[in-house]
Amino acid sequence: MARTGRRPGEPATRQRIEATARELFAERGFDATSVRAIAAAAGVDPSLIHHYFGSKQALFIAVMRLPLDHLEAAEPFLVEGDPDTVGERFVRFGLRMWDEPASRPALLGILRSALTDPAAAEMLRDLFTRTGPVRAIERLAPSEPQLRAELVGSHLVGLAMARHVLRIEPLASADPETIVAIVGPTIQRYVTGDLPAVAAKPGSAT
Amino acid sequence: MARTGRRPGEPATRQRIEATARELFAERGFDATSVRAIAAAAGVDPSLIHHYFGSKQALFIAVMRLPLDHLEAAEPFLVEGDPDTVGERFVRFGLRMWDEPASRPALLGILRSALTDPAAAEMLRDLFTRTGPVRAIERLAPSEPQLRAELVGSHLVGLAMARHVLRIEPLASADPETIVAIVGPTIQRYVTGDLPAVAAKPGSAT
Repeated sequence: MARTGRRPGEPATRQRIEATARELFAERGFDATSVRAIAAAAGVDPSLIHHYFGSKQALFIAVMRLPLDHLEAAEPFLVEGDPDTVGERFVRFGLRMWDEPASRPALLGILRSALTDPAAAEMLRDLFTRTGPVRAIERLAPSEPQLRAELVGSHLVGLAMARHVLRIEPLASADPETIVAIVGPTIQRYVTGDLPAVAAKPGSAT
Repeated sequence: MARTGRRPGEPATRQRIEATARELFAERGFDATSVRAIAAAAGVDPSLIHHYFGSKQALFIAVMRLPLDHLEAAEPFLVEGDPDTVGERFVRFGLRMWDEPASRPALLGILRSALTDPAAAEMLRDLFTRTGPVRAIERLAPSEPQLRAELVGSHLVGLAMARHVLRIEPLASADPETIVAIVGPTIQRYVTGDLPAVAAKPGSAT
């Protein structure tokens, strides 16, 4: 590669690095993916990755941005419309995120990494506490929006894991609208229904 | 260490290796934990681990046996009793597994490993398809027991992840009986309720 011919920030190279990183993070998780491996697979020098992104952590956040942007933009879709189909809209939105070819590797990467890497866990924690769906729940829920967001999020993450990581059948191949019909009423209750008051047990759960 | 003084299969050493392995697998997952690291932490020669267990894979299965045994034994507890509180019994059982000090590291180990290691994923897949709760659902469900087991399992795994890996509040510190009251009706419906028929979408979900 001719060093002089490469402009820093050249979009095609940057995009190739991002696409490669997204794929490797999705496959192996954050911990097991080195900058060196991403550079090799993308056919660039590792120093270029540091030049563009600063750190592996920053690269991870950059390539995971797509689903985060979707989550940020979800609030109106989730809030507006028939109040009785809120649950269905949440499930439909969650399934669509995972079925979109550009989002799925990023979500897989976050999920795979969150279980072993504290920084990725922090990102996943953020999804549960600070994104469009959480704000939607804050507007829709009669009480305890944070608890409700966690119930909704943990159910949808568990489903995604069963479908896209474990790939257990018949769930993995079930038609999305079937899952909307099955899980929608659960999410409807978690978002808008009456829930028993939460008692915290003494000490933390861990 | 005096090699001649050690009897192969000596229970205390074997147990120390298992306890150490359980801890490291739980913390780092299967992939990132080497036999060498387990041996060092347990203060034994790596060859002794191979002698006792054969392979890292076999050691992993050995130390994960405890929650598997609990799952195997769960069927009568889940099936017998008031049919209207089936959901509550499932949630209570799931929470108890995670709250038991001896089971939690093993479950964390399976969960952490399943996302990156195919053999561990196969183990988690087995939990969804071949254990006591699945047989309980086969006896209780009016139809589609496998799908119902996957819905129940994925919801409870998602909850455990939120509580014990991400530790998001207020869910992480919520009293178990509060969670039983909130999630029980969902699981009741997934096990015994009327569900829409499942349409498979053309091709696989991946």
